[in-house]
Amino acid sequence: MTNRVCRLKSRPFGMSTRENFEIADEPMPTPGPGEFRVKVHAVSLDPAMRGWMAEGRSYVQPVALGDVMRAYAAGIVEESNHEAFRPGDAVMGLFGVQEHAVSDGTFVHKIDPAQAPMERWVGGLGMPGWTAYFGTMEILHPEAGQTLVVSAASGAVGSLVGQIGKLRGATVIGIAGGAEKCRYVTEELGFDAAIDYKAEDVEKRLVELAPDRVHMYFENVGGKIGNAVMHRMATFGRVAVCGLISSYNETDPAKVGYDAGAQRSILVNRLKIQGFIVFDFAKQMREAIGHLGKWHAEGKLKMREDVREGGVDAFPEALNMLYTGENFGKLVLKL
Amino acid sequence: MTNRVCRLKSRPFGMSTRENFEIADEPMPTPGPGEFRVKVHAVSLDPAMRGWMAEGRSYVQPVALGDVMRAYAAGIVEESNHEAFRPGDAVMGLFGVQEHAVSDGTFVHKIDPAQAPMERWVGGLGMPGWTAYFGTMEILHPEAGQTLVVSAASGAVGSLVGQIGKLRGATVIGIAGGAEKCRYVTEELGFDAAIDYKAEDVEKRLVELAPDRVHMYFENVGGKIGNAVMHRMATFGRVAVCGLISSYNETDPAKVGYDAGAQRSILVNRLKIQGFIVFDFAKQMREAIGHLGKWHAEGKLKMREDVREGGVDAFPEALNMLYTGENFGKLVLKL
Repeated sequence: MTNRVCRLKSRPFGMSTRENFEIADEPMPTPGPGEFRVKVHAVSLDPAMRGWMAEGRSYVQPVALGDVMRAYAAGIVEESNHEAFRPGDAVMGLFGVQEHAVSDGTFVHKIDPAQAPMERWVGGLGMPGWTAYFGTMEILHPEAGQTLVVSAASGAVGSLVGQIGKLRGATVIGIAGGAEKCRYVTEELGFDAAIDYKAEDVEKRLVELAPDRVHMYFENVGGKIGNAVMHRMATFGRVAVCGLISSYNETDPAKVGYDAGAQRSILVNRLKIQGFIVFDFAKQMREAIGHLGKWHAEGKLKMREDVREGGVDAFPEALNMLYTGENFGKLVLKL
Repeated sequence: MTNRVCRLKSRPFGMSTRENFEIADEPMPTPGPGEFRVKVHAVSLDPAMRGWMAEGRSYVQPVALGDVMRAYAAGIVEESNHEAFRPGDAVMGLFGVQEHAVSDGTFVHKIDPAQAPMERWVGGLGMPGWTAYFGTMEILHPEAGQTLVVSAASGAVGSLVGQIGKLRGATVIGIAGGAEKCRYVTEELGFDAAIDYKAEDVEKRLVELAPDRVHMYFENVGGKIGNAVMHRMATFGRVAVCGLISSYNETDPAKVGYDAGAQRSILVNRLKIQGFIVFDFAKQMREAIGHLGKWHAEGKLKMREDVREGGVDAFPEALNMLYTGENFGKLVLKL
């Protein structure tokens, strides 16, 4: 009876590697009074993980060296001394990259495996879905007839941003890497257009696709793509800054940030830019869960997961797929 | 009977020079039906002028080559075919850099020379004052106990931003160039502290002066100073982007923009950043004029003008004082 665990051994410079982690069998943890143990089935791999591994100020404490790598995950309660969580309950929470996790129930939600599979509960119906919902509804405020651009458009968050924008009547342009992802967002998700940033000049394509400029930008990536969209913003445009994934592993500071034209656009176009994380909207969580669940049940929100096998040991390599764009859909590690 | 006029001859690259302007005597203009002629007394020199001279998208049309250089100015009506504006009336408006201007009254306001001198009506009681008022009250929303930082703190806008912040109970730190300007904002304007960007490390000083970080930043300058403040923003901080004067004449694009740390701060600290110009708040203009006039009359708002002599011919050199920081107080050209 052992537990396979991935701990953070050292802080990465640039992209993390296997050497930054210690993966080993440890004794099976035992839940104390008021605690329960979860058998983890699906570990969510999120862009934010790179930030959690870094030292320095962020919106959460960094993972301490020697600690279990932080991760959202879904699983089944297997043993419990907690009244509200009973063996057999399906749950999601911050269980970390490990096969079994002990929890006191803090920030743990029950999920319904009959409604959607485990991997979707850490994807479109979980944190990434809520993130898309709040950023779109509370910051961008989509208006019919206006143009919404989203980067990382085929990803866990981006794919929902675009679909929610469409539900609200906006014209939606997705930016994604490669013809297959572009085809997916237009043909399967119903976006109005897609730009393949690996093959096309993003700014030039925006001039063609959105001659009246961009009213809303959901920023997931930053870097060159972010600058290109910023240059094309419309007067009184809104920008929701959810992620800057292109910069997380960038070791050359000259390659990140907003360039002269992007900064000037803030002033000239009188933009409203707002950075956010999902917890900033904790009070409206019920509303998000309700809307997403309803739209999903009605078939109005399509969700796609990219489920990787290989257990805890596959974590370091799987994580980096997010930064190279190798994944296609919400990246989940199956245990 | 001639009129000395400054026209835009060519578009500057970097800082404008005398060669970009044509200054000459022209025939005295005659007001047509519904028009009046103003003898201009005080021409406002504003950082925005650099943008008006440039081609390319901005919030207003650029000044066309051959046109009178656009400028706010105050003067006295000397001849009129307009019912509402009679000879002897003191007025302010977009009269341009010239000794006499003909107007149909569009965007012209009457002013009261008994309440304040001409130069103040194009300064703290005019456009720069309204700008400070809206950016501070409508975007930064000063709260008692929070820290407000303003760059170009001794300038026309910045000096009022800080004083309004103090009136609202905020702790105010001004950033200015040189010991004399720093002494002015603390000793005469009542700011809590000043940072001399010419002699001190802005970011290091902010760590000392605002250990709880910066809740509000009124951005007038951009560049290195802007980045330094952005790095020190607090969670849920607000940034009002009013100007980016350090970048207006910068010909090296690598030296402007928000750097990696500034961009990251938007996300990590969940900042709200808003670019604005005074006309975005046109509906609340009465409110601004009322408050500023009242506070000024009560002695709660100190205003300082830097009045330059030399007439229309002195315009090109006087303008550049804004970008070198040579002026001290609202820069006005006396005709």
